[in-house]
Amino acid sequence: MVDEGTPTYEDRQASIDERVDDLLDRMTLAEKTGQVTGAFSSDARADPYGSHALKDLESLVRERAIGWVTPFATGFSKHNSPAVVPRIANRLQRIAREETRLGIPLLVPVDAVHGHANVAGATVFPHNLGLAATWSPDLVRRAARVTATEMRATGATVNYSPNTDVAREPRWGRTYETYGEAARLVGELARAEVEGLQGGSDGSGLADSTAVAATVKHFPAYSAPQRGEDAAPNDVSMSTLHRVFVPPFERAIDAGAAAVMPSYSAVDGEPIHGSRRFLTELLRDDLGFDGLTLSDWHGVAFLHRRHGTAPSLRDAVDQATRAGLDVASIGGREYADLLVDLVEEGRVPEARLDESVRRVLECKFRLGLFDDPYVDPNEGQEVVGRDAHRELSLQCARESIVLLQNDGDALPFGDDVDELLVTGPNAASLDALCSGWTVAGLSEAHGTTVRDGLETVTDARTTGTTVTFEPGASIRATTDAELDAAAAAAETADAAVVVLGETWYVHEFGPESVTGPTDEFPTRSQLELPQAQTRLLERVADTGTPTVLVVVAGRPLAIPDESRLADAVLTGFYPGYEGGRAIAEILVGETNPSGRLPISMPKSVGHLPTVHDHRPSPRPLGEDNHPPAYDPLFAFGHGLSYTDFEYESLTCTADRLDPDDDLDVSVTVANRGDRTGTEAVQLYLRDVVSSRVTPVRELVGFERLTIAPGERKRATVTLTPAELGVTHPDGSTVVEPGRFEVMSGGLSGEFTVTE
Amino acid sequence: MVDEGTPTYEDRQASIDERVDDLLDRMTLAEKTGQVTGAFSSDARADPYGSHALKDLESLVRERAIGWVTPFATGFSKHNSPAVVPRIANRLQRIAREETRLGIPLLVPVDAVHGHANVAGATVFPHNLGLAATWSPDLVRRAARVTATEMRATGATVNYSPNTDVAREPRWGRTYETYGEAARLVGELARAEVEGLQGGSDGSGLADSTAVAATVKHFPAYSAPQRGEDAAPNDVSMSTLHRVFVPPFERAIDAGAAAVMPSYSAVDGEPIHGSRRFLTELLRDDLGFDGLTLSDWHGVAFLHRRHGTAPSLRDAVDQATRAGLDVASIGGREYADLLVDLVEEGRVPEARLDESVRRVLECKFRLGLFDDPYVDPNEGQEVVGRDAHRELSLQCARESIVLLQNDGDALPFGDDVDELLVTGPNAASLDALCSGWTVAGLSEAHGTTVRDGLETVTDARTTGTTVTFEPGASIRATTDAELDAAAAAAETADAAVVVLGETWYVHEFGPESVTGPTDEFPTRSQLELPQAQTRLLERVADTGTPTVLVVVAGRPLAIPDESRLADAVLTGFYPGYEGGRAIAEILVGETNPSGRLPISMPKSVGHLPTVHDHRPSPRPLGEDNHPPAYDPLFAFGHGLSYTDFEYESLTCTADRLDPDDDLDVSVTVANRGDRTGTEAVQLYLRDVVSSRVTPVRELVGFERLTIAPGERKRATVTLTPAELGVTHPDGSTVVEPGRFEVMSGGLSGEFTVTE
Repeated sequence: MVDEGTPTYEDRQASIDERVDDLLDRMTLAEKTGQVTGAFSSDARADPYGSHALKDLESLVRERAIGWVTPFATGFSKHNSPAVVPRIANRLQRIAREETRLGIPLLVPVDAVHGHANVAGATVFPHNLGLAATWSPDLVRRAARVTATEMRATGATVNYSPNTDVAREPRWGRTYETYGEAARLVGELARAEVEGLQGGSDGSGLADSTAVAATVKHFPAYSAPQRGEDAAPNDVSMSTLHRVFVPPFERAIDAGAAAVMPSYSAVDGEPIHGSRRFLTELLRDDLGFDGLTLSDWHGVAFLHRRHGTAPSLRDAVDQATRAGLDVASIGGREYADLLVDLVEEGRVPEARLDESVRRVLECKFRLGLFDDPYVDPNEGQEVVGRDAHRELSLQCARESIVLLQNDGDALPFGDDVDELLVTGPNAASLDALCSGWTVAGLSEAHGTTVRDGLETVTDARTTGTTVTFEPGASIRATTDAELDAAAAAAETADAAVVVLGETWYVHEFGPESVTGPTDEFPTRSQLELPQAQTRLLERVADTGTPTVLVVVAGRPLAIPDESRLADAVLTGFYPGYEGGRAIAEILVGETNPSGRLPISMPKSVGHLPTVHDHRPSPRPLGEDNHPPAYDPLFAFGHGLSYTDFEYESLTCTADRLDPDDDLDVSVTVANRGDRTGTEAVQLYLRDVVSSRVTPVRELVGFERLTIAPGERKRATVTLTPAELGVTHPDGSTVVEPGRFEVMSGGLSGEFTVTE
Repeated sequence: MVDEGTPTYEDRQASIDERVDDLLDRMTLAEKTGQVTGAFSSDARADPYGSHALKDLESLVRERAIGWVTPFATGFSKHNSPAVVPRIANRLQRIAREETRLGIPLLVPVDAVHGHANVAGATVFPHNLGLAATWSPDLVRRAARVTATEMRATGATVNYSPNTDVAREPRWGRTYETYGEAARLVGELARAEVEGLQGGSDGSGLADSTAVAATVKHFPAYSAPQRGEDAAPNDVSMSTLHRVFVPPFERAIDAGAAAVMPSYSAVDGEPIHGSRRFLTELLRDDLGFDGLTLSDWHGVAFLHRRHGTAPSLRDAVDQATRAGLDVASIGGREYADLLVDLVEEGRVPEARLDESVRRVLECKFRLGLFDDPYVDPNEGQEVVGRDAHRELSLQCARESIVLLQNDGDALPFGDDVDELLVTGPNAASLDALCSGWTVAGLSEAHGTTVRDGLETVTDARTTGTTVTFEPGASIRATTDAELDAAAAAAETADAAVVVLGETWYVHEFGPESVTGPTDEFPTRSQLELPQAQTRLLERVADTGTPTVLVVVAGRPLAIPDESRLADAVLTGFYPGYEGGRAIAEILVGETNPSGRLPISMPKSVGHLPTVHDHRPSPRPLGEDNHPPAYDPLFAFGHGLSYTDFEYESLTCTADRLDPDDDLDVSVTVANRGDRTGTEAVQLYLRDVVSSRVTPVRELVGFERLTIAPGERKRATVTLTPAELGVTHPDGSTVVEPGRFEVMSGGLSGEFTVTE
């Protein structure tokens, strides 16, 4: 019974609040539960999520009025053509708009975590760990804009991104999806990604027709599972939770992120999907988040099936809803119907459900879907993988590659390199440059492998370098014949590039249907390369030919033996479709490497955890009888350039300040070499004495400087009370009086906070 | 001004309370601070603790009236002769009694953690991890009685034992000092050790002249330091702290333990030595402990020197005292004087100090030291290492050895074994059987090496077996000549015993002055054996001669390759002076092995943590794409026998019970083999559904049964609400309604707790 004078939800002139009020008022309980329920289809023969056929998904929209659909681009879906997927989206939207009582449009979420990469031909950026190696919020923001644009062109409106997890356990198979080990770096890049996806930095985004809703995940501490086991408990103390894992979420939420996805895992004995303490008290009451919470796939069902906190799926739905979860991403008809029952029997208050429905509707209105939920069916092909987009991807890839070691200036290759060998399992593989959350098995023509890249960049050289390729080994195995062939080719070459590492995987290094057995490499228990790969490197290096090791992987592998064998070592954390070109440009010197490690590379799996911001502790038998707490093969922040940077000065604007004050720290860097280069200036802080144990040092700021030869530039980092505070188990931070040290590039300074 | 009618502290007829009241009333501030201060001397050239010379220690007692001295048996001390040390103790006591104003006797603490083993010739038991493999509280209690008796005979009165830590991080160098990974097993054995040391199970112990004060350590969670680094933070959640780490301390405290030693490490950002939350709120208010808290060595100074929670030693003393610490074990004059200042300036209330002094005095009165602080100087030699004591040590060693693998019944050796090779770095080493907290480098005549043991047991055989020895390798290295010699000897032998593993170390595998470089094996990053040792085993096994691997180590080493090479595998966790004899008896069949692993043996360091009671978690890509969470090479509780046990039945006394009820679970086991054997029946519990995530299974009880051939016996475990409850972060436990499963030896049962 809507009053005539009241605006209706279809009235474009009305405010979003008015439209939501009106619509909510009209909805039945069944319709409400449909709006907080999603479903997906893959039409593939088998996937681990038990998906629907597309026609069943259509029925669910038509008959059960579900509010969310994922009909393509899941990694398991057979629908990944940009010519097809917009049509699927439009068909589903048409059913929702025209064949349901209220005509509420659909939200279409996808996992576009490094480009809209589950669509064939899309622009595929480096994975986040690679993007983090650029230390560039600007690149991350621009890449996210491209991703959002390509998503909207295919009808997708919600991205399950940014990953805002702080990677503290490199055995974990999702490490490459993160922005690394430092809370500050992760927070800045996640914030930039939200801004890029949603198209605004003030929370007012989404309105643009190229904007998508960002989903900050996986709240709050998915990324340090015990033994690296995906979704295993992160048995972390509350003070570390609040110091390390929560702050990046705060930054991403401050940027206006539309949605948050809870972690699959349990923290302090509570599965996040069912935890009121984490989903309501921490996320909403403490952090002030007022957007949507979207379950991870089967996140609600796992409360019953794995965590054992609910005796049935029905109880799991109850638990999650009362904890504060809004939407079951692939809950399907069963979830929606159980929620109807729970409300009808009074276990879940209808007001609790209304809150969630309101948030869903608000998101749909903000995205403009009530006004036009359709896409131009031809736009997908036009927009996806555009030249300008791929050019940005190449730029990201270039800046993401880290030169770890360069003995005797083995790189870049000089004019005397006429014959070049490229070998190794990742030398000619596009899948290995992209890894999971990317359509697997596409033709190499979709991108540029390292071999292709080297052929391209050397073709352009006047010296007429020729490139020879030998496979040498697969990821896990080799043969004497393969090794002999590679060694023979190395003998006659002027230089050899050996491309090793990991290949395509998601989660626990699977699924087996794509990757083969998940108990072989890559697997969670091993960070060392398989013998087959090391033997290939050894055979090549033993020829005496200058040998460059390129590691393409999703985690910081432990390569102490390999770094001794090779003259130079480069690494790329899944640099994407243009990664082979970027690596080749660096090898021949067309590009000056500027990547810096966003995560420490340990000497062995036995050295874990190896993090730059560990806390100090007693040494009962003295320093001499105590191996170091942080002893990486390559440290966090490390990365070489083809030019030489000199840190000239570090100055603080004050040497004494009040606890409420900000402080600027400036660092001046000069380029003493002969070519332009980019340095990521990193500022670390140490709170010398505090009431709780604080890290030996912690990244608190950074700035990239591109400096011409003979010039100098200054980076300035503003330290606020948030950076200086001691974190308590309840999440509060207090700036305590006393001495602080700041460090950058071998320089240091200090200041005192007064009483 | 003491009233004549009031009893004085020297009045033996007065109550301890009356005597303490009187004495405290007479004491100056300086005297009080002396009573909460200890010091030590080693007279060795160098030790990492900066000890005093013995004569300086005497001055400290005389001039500063310190209340605690450790003049011998520290592992660093040059004083370790049982003929000498009682005289040192007496001399110091005489100074205290006769040359100080009030004549307060001294407490003399030592680290007698597996026998009074820092005294030469003492009875050396298996280290705790070995004792735990016996699953026998009775043996632990009797061993502790022996230790206390030998301590008192030399003048030592306080033992820094039992170690009550739950070992969850096998990289940690102190793993061998623990009773293993299961809270229940640790708790029962720590309780038994307290009873054995203090001489009573009702807290009334100590009065006996063979009793010593037990120190439960290291409260509350020292034993899972990050990356296995000694004293590094254990960054654990509060629910795990209370479920895993605290319960064993509760049991030991319930047994009347006189003292508790805080952990060096920090938990949730708080160094325990300076934490009121842990030392007062948890330990005293929640757990009800009313005894002494003794700092670990330099535990207070580390607040300033390493944790950074105190800007000076003075502030560290303040912090620790206000947190609730009673005694600085080796604080020395500086500590005592700083405490005087802090009280005088009002920072530390004198009442807080009085509390601590009172506890110290009470302990001295209870031990009878005011009445007679001296020992018969000849008793040390008579009591230490008595035959009866060593016979008990042999029995402990026998029951501590675990037969892990016995392919084709390779063991015990039959009569056809005429020629026996014994080889490997631990075959002829006594230090390797004992490891740290034992005088290192003593003559092998003090005990029985594996080689000696084999010669002894084969001499007694009528078949005339001869034993050949080849070193084969050292712990870290070997030579072709050594390997060739061992292989050649194996060729002609009927069987080979290869004794590998780790050798003497404390803390971080040092000190270097004893062990050599601490960054080589054994070191915290590596659980795999060095190549040298594996190559020796391989060379011996390759001869085709039946090969038995004996691993003597302090941690559960990862030996997947070695277990494939060997026919049979035995392990001993530092079985002590009689360990070689015990191993030999098992090899030839004189003793039927009965040890069961008190800790899981992982497949590799990359599989850590590998614990039986891990918690379940989601498997996003399904079971097939998810390697198991618990995949040990040898599981917790595993161990073979030379006879065959059959688990016949498991019954619960009820299938429904109230939350307050107890429940008995009985397991019947039959011996189907042809010799008597001992089975450690283990009962595991699973809480099927609960409000918080509970372990997939957890040890809740155990009982050893010695069963003759053809007979059967029953073990009964009583489950109380304490075992059935769900643990909350605040330490409370709640028994929740629902289904529970119990499991033992392949059998299972279930029961339901009603609303």
